[in-house]
Amino acid sequence: MTQALVVLSGGQDSTTCLAWAKRRYATVDAITFDYGQRHRVELACAVEVARRAGVRHHRTITVESLKQLGGNTLTAEAAEALGATGKGGLPNTFVPGRNLLFMTLAAAWGWQLGTTDLVTGVCQTDYSGYPDCRADTMAALQQALRLGLEAPVTIHTPLMHLSKADSVRLAQAEGGLELLAWTHTCYAGRVPPCGICPACLLRAKGFAEAGVGDPLLARLGGGAR
Amino acid sequence: MTQALVVLSGGQDSTTCLAWAKRRYATVDAITFDYGQRHRVELACAVEVARRAGVRHHRTITVESLKQLGGNTLTAEAAEALGATGKGGLPNTFVPGRNLLFMTLAAAWGWQLGTTDLVTGVCQTDYSGYPDCRADTMAALQQALRLGLEAPVTIHTPLMHLSKADSVRLAQAEGGLELLAWTHTCYAGRVPPCGICPACLLRAKGFAEAGVGDPLLARLGGGAR
Repeated sequence: MTQALVVLSGGQDSTTCLAWAKRRYATVDAITFDYGQRHRVELACAVEVARRAGVRHHRTITVESLKQLGGNTLTAEAAEALGATGKGGLPNTFVPGRNLLFMTLAAAWGWQLGTTDLVTGVCQTDYSGYPDCRADTMAALQQALRLGLEAPVTIHTPLMHLSKADSVRLAQAEGGLELLAWTHTCYAGRVPPCGICPACLLRAKGFAEAGVGDPLLARLGGGAR
Repeated sequence: MTQALVVLSGGQDSTTCLAWAKRRYATVDAITFDYGQRHRVELACAVEVARRAGVRHHRTITVESLKQLGGNTLTAEAAEALGATGKGGLPNTFVPGRNLLFMTLAAAWGWQLGTTDLVTGVCQTDYSGYPDCRADTMAALQQALRLGLEAPVTIHTPLMHLSKADSVRLAQAEGGLELLAWTHTCYAGRVPPCGICPACLLRAKGFAEAGVGDPLLARLGGGAR
């Protein structure tokens, strides 16, 4: 295993995975998806994180198709209340099949790079109604990718069973804490972060439980601490 | 089973599947993918076929990501010799993971439509180096989609084990022969079809073996018959 491709959103989890990969692979590439997310700052964070981590190639791929299939608050222009329950009892932030799509596109680029080790920050510990983040889903998709690409694709999910606090500890252990200063988490899209949305609160809880200061807040300050 | 979603390319196989679905489901929708294919006429054929078949909703979804990940003759602007062998011993028309991506997008739209029956014209009988068309790949993907969407997704592949001649007979049995007059097959992108490229020859062989006249040639005539 000499090279890996990391799915990098510009958030805390995927950045932690990038640090994890940098410690294990001689060459690391990264792929970011522009699917019309409301908070464009995430894309800029992904670029900055990739640059600071020294990845070889970083590409941001436009996924027009998700915008066109639409119908969720993370992409909708007129957003409903975040965190409310949408269709099928799933959170209305659910983009059906999003991670399946992202991993398939990552595998396709990996195929061209000669990389079969894919790394993603999906996590079922904080499982909040996203079935495409679960270990069994990723295992089934890995099998589909192996057969469909005739290549020994492996989907690595270093955070799958970690708590947010354990994830912070992992970032620290992998020397990736500094990178987290350049990530974006806030659901409200605020920079500095609002500090009161569910995403900010979850992040704060993780750092607090790990007993580590959040380097993002050290760099920028937080709105409602 | 009251509704189905057909992946419609505008070619012979997916159009046969549309006829198959029309006979079995009260409501049929169709989805077409614009992934930068060189022969734009396929997209127009899909629109025409969908209209003539009386599907409820037909959407053409732009898959920019495949263009961006590029590197194959079906999308490359400067095409190499068609049918030649490319990377990894696969035909250089291979778009890695293309069908995995298309089925995942179809499942995502199906999820919004309340449709879990997906229909695709993939076929492993004429398997020409496309591993993402095989039955085992589709079975694995179906499992990933079921888990990732928490929905009883079923991928129907009516042509999977049929010869081209059997496929023609199926179209005839399902009352879909007339629809085939509006499809596009020619790899050279010619209308009327060139009649000498591998795709035209395969199509002609199927009709000949089935003892059925090709309604496309009856409508347009063929270049090199």
